[in-house]
Amino acid sequence: MKQLEQMYEGKAKKVYATDDPNLVIVDYKDDATAFNGLKKGTIAGKGAINNRMTNYLMKQLEEQGIPTHFVKEIDDRKTVVKKVDIIPLEVIIRNRAAGSFSKRLGIPEGSDLRCSTLEFSYKDDDLGDPLINSYMAKAIGAATQEEIDVITDYAFRVNDLLKSFFKGIGIELIDFKLEFGKTADGTIVLADEISPDTCRYWDMETGEHLDKDRFRRDLGDPEGAYKEVFARMGFTEAD
Amino acid sequence: MKQLEQMYEGKAKKVYATDDPNLVIVDYKDDATAFNGLKKGTIAGKGAINNRMTNYLMKQLEEQGIPTHFVKEIDDRKTVVKKVDIIPLEVIIRNRAAGSFSKRLGIPEGSDLRCSTLEFSYKDDDLGDPLINSYMAKAIGAATQEEIDVITDYAFRVNDLLKSFFKGIGIELIDFKLEFGKTADGTIVLADEISPDTCRYWDMETGEHLDKDRFRRDLGDPEGAYKEVFARMGFTEAD
Ligand SMILES: Nc1ncnc2c1ncn2[C@@H]1O[C@H](COP(=O)(O)OP(=O)(O)OP(=O)(O)O)[C@@H](O)[C@H]1O
Ligand SMILES: Nc1ncnc2c1ncn2[C@@H]1O[C@H](COP(=O)(O)OP(=O)(O)OP(=O)(O)O)[C@@H](O)[C@H]1O
Ligand SMILES: [Mg+2]
Ligand SMILES: [Mg+2]
Repeated sequence: MKQLEQMYEGKAKKVYATDDPNLVIVDYKDDATAFNGLKKGTIAGKGAINNRMTNYLMKQLEEQGIPTHFVKEIDDRKTVVKKVDIIPLEVIIRNRAAGSFSKRLGIPEGSDLRCSTLEFSYKDDDLGDPLINSYMAKAIGAATQEEIDVITDYAFRVNDLLKSFFKGIGIELIDFKLEFGKTADGTIVLADEISPDTCRYWDMETGEHLDKDRFRRDLGDPEGAYKEVFARMGFTEAD
Repeated sequence: MKQLEQMYEGKAKKVYATDDPNLVIVDYKDDATAFNGLKKGTIAGKGAINNRMTNYLMKQLEEQGIPTHFVKEIDDRKTVVKKVDIIPLEVIIRNRAAGSFSKRLGIPEGSDLRCSTLEFSYKDDDLGDPLINSYMAKAIGAATQEEIDVITDYAFRVNDLLKSFFKGIGIELIDFKLEFGKTADGTIVLADEISPDTCRYWDMETGEHLDKDRFRRDLGDPEGAYKEVFARMGFTEAD
């Protein structure tokens, strides 16, 4: 399988075509952005960490019956994945109030929720990825009811699996964002990444933020936070 | 039944206690506000029109099996209604893109939707009545799943009934906002009002706005628009 031309450069990853029309290569960068690209920076080593964490978690999820785009890790930063048409919804699950949820509802960060929530943001940078609901997603053709049902079921199952995995390494999974896509044969699979860029991880003992909020909010040493989660997951620098 | 002290003065109505603890009197004002109270004005005659239109429509809906708070019209502006605890959700149904939906999604006003949509806004003026979804409503205790199911069912049934009623008088029902409440015995009923303040009415021939957008957007003669809908509904000034 050969890497061909770059198809897309996003804020955190590049996507390359391959000589197999059903496969692409994602290449994780150290670039970090926040607030819809307004804040820009670099987190040294992030690309490799996010690539390897994502692959590790996707493999675990596959074993538990969640179809993912993962195919094969090529090196530290690059992974072969199934090429999908991304469903233009950011799927956000929350186990505790934080971030935009807290702001929107005037609820302090860390507040308990009566139940975990699922949100859809419409993937459109120009509109600022606005919150929508499933009726709106259907009304504008972003997804069908069948797609929404599958995505919702997968997202809550992913939540259960990730929550318990991270609990095992002393981390509370506060919230996270997933993306799903459709492969050539129409199968819905989990795509994109699962990393401290896309999840909120709080240390269960100290409450310390072990995720991109360290960068967003200038809390200091984001590299250290990413490395900490990486190490707790059992990776050593040399792996 | 005696009118007692004023319990609440809203932007469009006052609410009075009565000597029956299960009943209140709503008193419709001519005051008009928009953009969460930022724009203020008066639409002469609006209070009486909204009171009488609301009562007419609530009676029709009751006959079709939708429980409402309506009890008895006292005069032009005042109506006895069942006292409810308002469920803090504005329930918005849309049949065509307009207003905040168009803005949020970058879709021109008047665009077709693949399906009618339902939205919940969390009733909180300080937060600007933010859009939420049903998971969020449950998570913050604004409503239970059972309440959400009942409200959703009623709202879509109200939509079917109102759409066909207004079609019969040459008006397309673009969107509208409902509020629901719980009576002392726990029954969920349709409350608040159904009027050109809370609905978008477009003339089916000319596309003319026959609703509060005439005030919001300075389109001229809001009084005339309210009177036009009132007249088409079969009311004469003298009624
Ligand atoms: N399996 C896949 N096939 C095709 N595209 C994918 C796949 N997985 C993820 N993508 C997309 O590749 C891009 C990855 O780049 P990155 O995460 O840097 O994007 P981004 O800057 O977050 O922008 P976007 O708003 O497009 O998500 C995203 O657009 C993502 O949706
Ligand atoms: N049957 C009812 N029992 C008790 N309260 C009601 C009933 N019907 C409507 N209400 C409430 O009475 C008030 C009516 O006043 P008005 O419509 O002017 O309020 P508003 O300025 O829109 O403010 P709000 O944000 O509270 O709706 C609203 O708060 C409404 O929710
Ligand atoms: Mg991304
Ligand atoms: Mg009101």
